[in-house]
Amino acid sequence: MTFDPAGFAPVHFRWAFEAGVAIVTIDKPSQKNPLTFESYAELRDTFRALVYASDVKAVVITGAEGNFCSGGNVHDIIGPLTRMTMPELLDFTRMTGDLVKAIRGCPQPVIAAIDGVCAGAGAIIAMCADYRIATPRAKTAFLFTRVGLAGCDMGACAILPRIIGQGRASDLLFSGRALGAEEGERWGFHNRIVEPDTLLDEAQAFARSLVEGPTFAHGITKTQLNMEWNVSLETAIEMEAQAQAICMKTEDFRRAYDAFVAKQQPVFEGN
Amino acid sequence: MTFDPAGFAPVHFRWAFEAGVAIVTIDKPSQKNPLTFESYAELRDTFRALVYASDVKAVVITGAEGNFCSGGNVHDIIGPLTRMTMPELLDFTRMTGDLVKAIRGCPQPVIAAIDGVCAGAGAIIAMCADYRIATPRAKTAFLFTRVGLAGCDMGACAILPRIIGQGRASDLLFSGRALGAEEGERWGFHNRIVEPDTLLDEAQAFARSLVEGPTFAHGITKTQLNMEWNVSLETAIEMEAQAQAICMKTEDFRRAYDAFVAKQQPVFEGN
Amino acid sequence: MTFDPAGFAPVHFRWAFEAGVAIVTIDKPSQKNPLTFESYAELRDTFRALVYASDVKAVVITGAEGNFCSGGNVHDIIGPLTRMTMPELLDFTRMTGDLVKAIRGCPQPVIAAIDGVCAGAGAIIAMCADYRIATPRAKTAFLFTRVGLAGCDMGACAILPRIIGQGRASDLLFSGRALGAEEGERWGFHNRIVEPDTLLDEAQAFARSLVEGPTFAHGITKTQLNMEWNVSLETAIEMEAQAQAICMKTEDFRRAYDAFVAKQQPVFEGN
Repeated sequence: MTFDPAGFAPVHFRWAFEAGVAIVTIDKPSQKNPLTFESYAELRDTFRALVYASDVKAVVITGAEGNFCSGGNVHDIIGPLTRMTMPELLDFTRMTGDLVKAIRGCPQPVIAAIDGVCAGAGAIIAMCADYRIATPRAKTAFLFTRVGLAGCDMGACAILPRIIGQGRASDLLFSGRALGAEEGERWGFHNRIVEPDTLLDEAQAFARSLVEGPTFAHGITKTQLNMEWNVSLETAIEMEAQAQAICMKTEDFRRAYDAFVAKQQPVFEGN
Repeated sequence: MTFDPAGFAPVHFRWAFEAGVAIVTIDKPSQKNPLTFESYAELRDTFRALVYASDVKAVVITGAEGNFCSGGNVHDIIGPLTRMTMPELLDFTRMTGDLVKAIRGCPQPVIAAIDGVCAGAGAIIAMCADYRIATPRAKTAFLFTRVGLAGCDMGACAILPRIIGQGRASDLLFSGRALGAEEGERWGFHNRIVEPDTLLDEAQAFARSLVEGPTFAHGITKTQLNMEWNVSLETAIEMEAQAQAICMKTEDFRRAYDAFVAKQQPVFEGN
Repeated sequence: MTFDPAGFAPVHFRWAFEAGVAIVTIDKPSQKNPLTFESYAELRDTFRALVYASDVKAVVITGAEGNFCSGGNVHDIIGPLTRMTMPELLDFTRMTGDLVKAIRGCPQPVIAAIDGVCAGAGAIIAMCADYRIATPRAKTAFLFTRVGLAGCDMGACAILPRIIGQGRASDLLFSGRALGAEEGERWGFHNRIVEPDTLLDEAQAFARSLVEGPTFAHGITKTQLNMEWNVSLETAIEMEAQAQAICMKTEDFRRAYDAFVAKQQPVFEGN
C-alpha cells in the first residue's frame, strides 16, 4: 500500500513530483501520445495507488510536445481487439473503465492540461479530470463512432452530459467531431484557455493553489461530487451534513478560524 | 412487426424516406402545425414501429411552411380535456408521455429541424430529439403555465434541466416564455442555427452523415444516453464496458480497422 | 399550521408581504448580512410554514444595502463550531441542510435578488432559489474551502453541477473563488443581470408575473423539478403524466380555456 511519489518510476509514462503536485505525462510524441494495453494498466494502478499516497495532494495530467493523448493505438490496441473473444473484450473495456474509476476515485483533484490532439480515450481522460486547462490548439474528439464503435466508452454517456448538457454531448458522441478550445470553454468543458507555452505552468499553479488549501476537505469534495449524481435532493443534503461535519472535526478548520481571529492567512496541513 | 418505410403512408403527418433517412413533417400550416389526439397516437405508433425498421437509420422531424409545431390544438384537445374524468385525463397524459418514450426509445438518432413556432408539445418533441437545428426565427415555448398547467409535461422537468441546466429550465418552465434561437444556441438547446431556406437541407445532411456512420453503434449510444441518467458512476462505467464490448463484436468495428490499415475510408453497414 | 403573511414579524430578518409576494430581507448591512444560528433557524421555520401559507404565491429573497448575504458569521458561528462535539456539529449541518430542504420544499417559486457579496451559506441560498437576478456587482463565492471545509455544504455538490455543469461546479467548489455576475449569466447561474437600483423592482415584477399565473400548477412544477433528479426517464414521464392530470382538474385550466375561447386574458386563481 505504500507509495513513494519521489521515487516512483513508471515505465509507460513520465512522472514528476514536487511540493505535493504529481505530473503525469503521456510521452510518445512521435505518435501523439497514444495509449497501449500496458500504459492503460499502469495508469490505472497509479491512480489506484494515489488513494494511499497522502504526500500527493493534486495531480496534473498532460501529454508531451504539443499533444495531449491520441487514445488507443490502432495497431497496438484496435487490431488485437478485432480478433478477441467476448470475454477478452469485456476484460479490456472493464480495464479502461477501471482507469476512469481510478481517476475519479483518488482523493486528489486531477487537472488536465490539454494541447493539440485529445482523442478517444485521451478525450475520456480529459473528461474525467476535475479541471481542464486547454490551449487554443486543443482538439477534443470523442471519436469512437469513427472507428465503428458507440459513444458510450468509459462512462462518456454518463459523464459528458453532466459537464456540457445532453444536447451538446449527443452532438459530440454521435458525430465524433472534434470540439475546439473556445467552443469547449463556452460549453463548460474547458475551464480555461491559455497559450501553449504557459500551459503546464498554469496547470501547476492551479494545482499548487489547491495544495495550499485544505486537501483532506478537497478529497471529501471530490467524493461527494462522485456520489451525489444519482441520489435524491434529501439524500444529498443529509450526505453533505455528515461529510461536512467530518470536515469540521479537522485541524484545518480550526487553523482557518485561528488565522481569521489573528488576521492572518491560514496555513493548511491537510488534516 | 414489419414496417416498410418506402410504402408507409401515415394519415396525420407527412412521411418521406430516402437513403436511410425518414422525414416526418407535421403538416397543417394554416394552424402552425398543431397536434391532435389522432396525430399524437399516429406519431407514437410510428416511432414505436421504428424499433423494428432496420432500413431507417436516422429521422428528421420538422413542420410545414415556416413553423415547427404549435402543440395541442386548443379546440381539438384542450376543450375536450376540460370536460374529461380523471381516468380519461390520465389516459391522455400517458399517451403524450408515450410519444416521448417512443422518440427516445427508437434506436435512430432524431434530428429536429425547427423554424418559427415551436410551442407546447411541439417544444417537447424538439426537446426529446437528439439534435436540434433551428432558424433565427425559431421561438420555443414550454407554455404550459400559460394554459393553466404545470411545466411538468411529457418529461420536461426531467429532460430540459439536463439539456440547459436547472436554473434556465426553471425560467422557461415557470414563465412559459419563448426561447429565441440565439439564446437557445448559447444555452445548448439548439445545436446549430441556420437560415430558413437551408434548414431542411442541413438537417438531412447531418442525418446522412450519421447514416454513413456505424448505425448499430449509434443505437447503442442512444440507449446508453437514455439509461445512464440515474445510475451511479460505477454502474455507468460497467454498463458502458458491456455495451462497448457488444459493439466491438460488430463487423463495422472490423471494417473501420481494415479501412485504416488499407488507408481507406471505412464503409459502414450497421451490423 | 396557520400562517398570517400580513401579520408575520420575524425577529432575525425583515419580512414584507404585498399582493401575494413575500420579500425576505437579510438585514444586518454593517456585516454584509451574515447568518447566525438564530437566523438560520428562523428562515428554516419560515420556509417550512410557507407550505401552508396559501396566500403567499411567490417569495423574493434579498439582502439589505448592497449585499446579499455573507454567510455564517465567523465569530457567531465558526468559532463555536470549532469547539463542538460531533453530535453538536451534525445538529448544525443538518439544520443548515434543513434550510435548503425548506426552500426547495415550499411550493412558492423563490427568486433570489443578488447584489454585492453572496458568500458561503449566502451562495447556497442563492443556489437553491428557483430564479436568480443579479447586479453587475454580485460576487458569488462557495468559499467553504477558504475556511478549511469541503465544498459539499448544504447540497452544493448535488445542486450546483445541475445548474452550471460538473466542470464549472468543480472549479468553484475546489477553489472557493468568487463567480462574477456576467460569468454567472453565461454559465446559467444568474438568469438575468440588472442594475442595482432596479434589482428589487425587477425581482418583484418577475414574482408578480408568476403570481398572475396558475400558482397551484407552479407548485407542482417545483415539486417535479425537485423529485425528477434521480429517477429513470420512464419513471419521470409517468410521474409527469400523473402530475399534469392533477393540474388538468384545476379551475385554472378551465379558466385558461374559457378565456381563450372568449379571446380574453385568463385570470388565474391558483386552484
